[in-house]
Amino acid sequence: MTQAAIEALLRPRSVTILGASDRSRWSCTAFDNLRQGGFAGTVQLVNRRGGSVHGQAAAQSVAALGEAPDLGLVLLPAEAVAEAVRDLGAAGARSAVILTSGFAELGDAGAAVQREVAEAAGRAGVRLLGPNSLGFINFADGVCAWTTPVRAPTRREGVAIVSQSGATAYFLATLAWRHDVGLSHVVATGNEADLDLAAVALSLLRQPATKSLALFIETLRDPAGFLALAEAALAARKPLVVLKVGTSEVTAKSALAHTGALVGDDRVFDGICAQYGIVRARSVEELLTTADVMGRAGPLRPGGLGIVSNSGGICEIAADSAAARGLVLPELAPEAAAALRETIPGFATPHNPLDLTGAITPEQCEAVVEIVAAQPALAAVLCPYYEVPTEQADMSERLSGLHAALAAGLTRAPVPGFVVSYTATHLTPLSKRIVAETGMPYLACGLDLAVTALAGSARWSGRLRQPPAAVRVAPAPEAERPRSEHAALQVLARHGVPVVPVVLARDAEQAVRAAAAQEGEVVLKIASPDIGHKSDMGGVALGLRGAEAVRTAHDRLRAAALAHAPEAVVEGVLVAPMRPRGIELFVGVTRDPQWGAVLAVGLGGVWVEVLKDVALRLLPVDADEVRRMLESLCGAAMLAGQRGVPAADLDAVAGAIARIGDAALAFGPELVALDVNPLWVRGGQVEALDALCVWQDGEEGA
Amino acid sequence: MTQAAIEALLRPRSVTILGASDRSRWSCTAFDNLRQGGFAGTVQLVNRRGGSVHGQAAAQSVAALGEAPDLGLVLLPAEAVAEAVRDLGAAGARSAVILTSGFAELGDAGAAVQREVAEAAGRAGVRLLGPNSLGFINFADGVCAWTTPVRAPTRREGVAIVSQSGATAYFLATLAWRHDVGLSHVVATGNEADLDLAAVALSLLRQPATKSLALFIETLRDPAGFLALAEAALAARKPLVVLKVGTSEVTAKSALAHTGALVGDDRVFDGICAQYGIVRARSVEELLTTADVMGRAGPLRPGGLGIVSNSGGICEIAADSAAARGLVLPELAPEAAAALRETIPGFATPHNPLDLTGAITPEQCEAVVEIVAAQPALAAVLCPYYEVPTEQADMSERLSGLHAALAAGLTRAPVPGFVVSYTATHLTPLSKRIVAETGMPYLACGLDLAVTALAGSARWSGRLRQPPAAVRVAPAPEAERPRSEHAALQVLARHGVPVVPVVLARDAEQAVRAAAAQEGEVVLKIASPDIGHKSDMGGVALGLRGAEAVRTAHDRLRAAALAHAPEAVVEGVLVAPMRPRGIELFVGVTRDPQWGAVLAVGLGGVWVEVLKDVALRLLPVDADEVRRMLESLCGAAMLAGQRGVPAADLDAVAGAIARIGDAALAFGPELVALDVNPLWVRGGQVEALDALCVWQDGEEGA
Repeated sequence: MTQAAIEALLRPRSVTILGASDRSRWSCTAFDNLRQGGFAGTVQLVNRRGGSVHGQAAAQSVAALGEAPDLGLVLLPAEAVAEAVRDLGAAGARSAVILTSGFAELGDAGAAVQREVAEAAGRAGVRLLGPNSLGFINFADGVCAWTTPVRAPTRREGVAIVSQSGATAYFLATLAWRHDVGLSHVVATGNEADLDLAAVALSLLRQPATKSLALFIETLRDPAGFLALAEAALAARKPLVVLKVGTSEVTAKSALAHTGALVGDDRVFDGICAQYGIVRARSVEELLTTADVMGRAGPLRPGGLGIVSNSGGICEIAADSAAARGLVLPELAPEAAAALRETIPGFATPHNPLDLTGAITPEQCEAVVEIVAAQPALAAVLCPYYEVPTEQADMSERLSGLHAALAAGLTRAPVPGFVVSYTATHLTPLSKRIVAETGMPYLACGLDLAVTALAGSARWSGRLRQPPAAVRVAPAPEAERPRSEHAALQVLARHGVPVVPVVLARDAEQAVRAAAAQEGEVVLKIASPDIGHKSDMGGVALGLRGAEAVRTAHDRLRAAALAHAPEAVVEGVLVAPMRPRGIELFVGVTRDPQWGAVLAVGLGGVWVEVLKDVALRLLPVDADEVRRMLESLCGAAMLAGQRGVPAADLDAVAGAIARIGDAALAFGPELVALDVNPLWVRGGQVEALDALCVWQDGEEGA
Repeated sequence: MTQAAIEALLRPRSVTILGASDRSRWSCTAFDNLRQGGFAGTVQLVNRRGGSVHGQAAAQSVAALGEAPDLGLVLLPAEAVAEAVRDLGAAGARSAVILTSGFAELGDAGAAVQREVAEAAGRAGVRLLGPNSLGFINFADGVCAWTTPVRAPTRREGVAIVSQSGATAYFLATLAWRHDVGLSHVVATGNEADLDLAAVALSLLRQPATKSLALFIETLRDPAGFLALAEAALAARKPLVVLKVGTSEVTAKSALAHTGALVGDDRVFDGICAQYGIVRARSVEELLTTADVMGRAGPLRPGGLGIVSNSGGICEIAADSAAARGLVLPELAPEAAAALRETIPGFATPHNPLDLTGAITPEQCEAVVEIVAAQPALAAVLCPYYEVPTEQADMSERLSGLHAALAAGLTRAPVPGFVVSYTATHLTPLSKRIVAETGMPYLACGLDLAVTALAGSARWSGRLRQPPAAVRVAPAPEAERPRSEHAALQVLARHGVPVVPVVLARDAEQAVRAAAAQEGEVVLKIASPDIGHKSDMGGVALGLRGAEAVRTAHDRLRAAALAHAPEAVVEGVLVAPMRPRGIELFVGVTRDPQWGAVLAVGLGGVWVEVLKDVALRLLPVDADEVRRMLESLCGAAMLAGQRGVPAADLDAVAGAIARIGDAALAFGPELVALDVNPLWVRGGQVEALDALCVWQDGEEGA
């Protein structure tokens, strides 16, 4: 229903401007934009004084309009908006864009006014964009309901921009015009009293003109909606590129101050991006360029980047910048190198990156691009080359010939390829005409942003190639609430997690018997829900062998517990086999206030404590996703083993961790945190050696 | 002498084009550039057929010129260049720019021709720029000896560009023109048969018009010259910004293939940048922008960044991007916040970043900028604001008023401040006129690059504030060549390095006596120059107490050595006190083929082996520099101590490491490598526990 409502809002048959006035710059601009943007439907105006506005008669009220309105553009002051929305609803309108500001962004009083508007809209059956929105532009269908001057793109398909900030949407659209980036839509969702960014983006994803989505996000009001969008984008194979603020403490604090919203941990959002193949941009330029390149290139096949340029310096810069972003530049196959030498006599040793130098002919250029682009090791080709002229004076026959040759070579290539300006430049009307006429796949963003974009594209394409996660049966709810290490390990074991065989011994003799049942040395740990950091207080004894050693250690541990915490309930001691040195992992599940259950995986000790080297994902995850988490760690090389410690069996590890995640989900929302620390790994042996559950009632058990 | 020669080359009184021809595009362009670039001296032409060229009479030879030439621009084919250089020298010219290509960049044959040219020039007393150069432009003095079309900057002072690639120099100059960046010089040093980039840059550093240097480097042919440049730049307080290729394997390989030059480890170059306050850029755009901003801002005082914008979204993006680059955004002082509330009624809670919203008046805007910029916690202010109009249609009285207000407020500010475009844009002639007339400190590079530039500026400014390193007496040469662990530790101790007191015991009884002389437990290690990895072969015994234990361990170690390496010379065992758990550092000195002795400092174990978390510097270093090395490590937090390990006394650690560096220098170039691993630290206790020297004759001693 919401989706149908958004479709209707973005494609109205008639539009009414409420608060239309010749004295309002916004009203004039909105009216002009509708007309010049090619809107084919009726545009009506309401001004409570009536008369002639923008050269046509204005009605004094919505009720007095000649035709039932489809969409209302509301330019009235904040306090008049609720009434206007009621009027619109009564007259049969089903959508409104609230362009006025002065709502929740001003604080509590404004938020109250905004709630009143939202409630009025809900009762009147009117869906809202805004308030505090600059409007929307549906370039694909020619509806320009936007309040600042708009310059239409050459191509009315490509990137759909959805932004919570109207100004940022405008900056993106301006940049798109300068760089000749095709746009399907621009939507500013503003304060999101009703429709939010995720819902709007989901709708745009379904538009054929939309090839990719560029989102500017300040606050995610509907995390579940965002995840639904992310899944739909994967299914539609259309890239999501996101610039989300809040990576720094300053913005997290200011978001809290502005909206009172609990902002989730930004690193969790990074994990979600990895999980769903969302590409995260760090600047306005990167957001637009990446969405543009990814939408135009489509999913890439596996492989590296081919670089063909006429400047040796740029070739080297391109190679360094590709490597820094994780793209490889595969060497050319010997046959390709031979073919290149045949095409251009005097080519000493053709490499990737390939420097064509200045002396090449258009025919050679076309042949070279074809030879390079046919390399099976490549996923894409980038040609930093002479820029498209911006003025008549820059044009020459030779340049046109080279550009035509590049266009021809790249268009026939089996992989996506682009000619890219050396640095970011602007396309003039002349340049845009040249690009359109030659059909050259041209990027005006400059080499650096283009490489960044292709690196994002490669990551997203890799995500698309992953087999879809098996349909997952939700784990049966677990009723038990383990409050001790022993109990926690037992429940984990029931959920299929490999755990160390541990016995709770109530007294010394039970401990001795339990130890005797083990081959080799044992470990004793004090068992008390009231004692944390057991090692520090002398509550752990390692490497015990023989009855006497166990008995002595037992008594020592009990004495230490009594001395350390006389009030503590001590259940006994845990007896477990001593494991040889292995790789120790940290596996934790926490509840993010915004996103819910989050799995954290890292190497133990300093890796987590000092380096914060942790991979995060939303639960549930399957073992494949856990493997990717492990591979993404800075310390991933540790998993390949060290002196005396064999390499970890990653399938076994990933499987165990996935089951820990399932167990955490089975506990339901009462579980605040679950730590398995360490998860011990030695080759194919994987065991949880310790576990801790924290429950909402504040009690924990370690 | 070289410096005087470069000054003369860049400021000739007369210029002669050799190989001048109306049919040569380069000749025409060079001639036009000289004329249009405002060259006040004589321009003469030489063409072996004589006649009229470029509308003036051409001489048939250099000897036939009417006036003795000062600078020759050589456009002749490669094989004719040596002869031309000889002719120039004979006629009294002292400088030549070899614009032709076809030399070393083509391989061995070309390199031979290039050597011939260089030798001819040396004998003729002519200094050379090139070959394979596009020429140079001295904007400051109006000498445009350049072979592609040039558009002059508005301001003929600011950034000096020196590039080994002519094309890259051209891209930089073009970008400068688009962004209205002031330029003092552009020099393409090409193949550097004679004058190299470092020498040219050193000369430009002395020009008053040069405020900063932007260098594009493919190969450093004179590392010592580069270091001299770096030191001179620090002394002159003019920033060096460098884009140096070779960070990736592909470019390192291709540089090797192209020039046969040994390329130093790129991470060493990173260390040198840290050491000398050189800012390293990663793209052409970043290189130019950073040099421009740093030159215009000058050294910054300590402090953070203030952001004032009219867009909330941009404020948040700015805050995140500043934080990501290590810049803080200090909160406004309460009095400043109060003053802002007074200036703009309705300002709820003024913060840094400060969102002025759209409704502000120019007067308010000016006052706000002044209040913010007066904050003592700030080092610089950035105002992402309405862009300067590029077309007449974009102009409005309000916009002009706001820009004038920003210009007035920022110009009076006690710290550098800039208005910056939201995204990278181009300035048209109209925009440039507006900027010049308002005197607005304007950056057209966009927010993202501006923040990156200011972050570089802050790092450089911090480096300028460091007290100059004390004048250092070169360490007296060390004649000893220690070839065993024991000997190495002894020599280090003589050089003031704290080392563990270790005794070489020739037999069991000596070992027992040495152990008895220690309080507490001891360690035994097999002492043999022929046995490495002593732990692996059972050559180390830890935690020994009492004569019996020492005797047994001694015999076990000797037996293990015999079993492991029957041919090895075994000197005995080393007896050292057992040290409690501490922080273990790795300190290594190696010899980089390009840069010489390099000091590496890291935390031991996985930190070095898996994470490659190592700080590198050229020797010598003082203790302050070592402290900065330690603080730059990813694992720096480990130095603050862990459970049971007290925090390291950084002064003690840094002092010990600096002395290790001095000792390595004292050994001279015969030392291939010196490893102290570990340097053990526990609070203020610092001791080298093990040391290894590797000598050029291939023998080592561990």
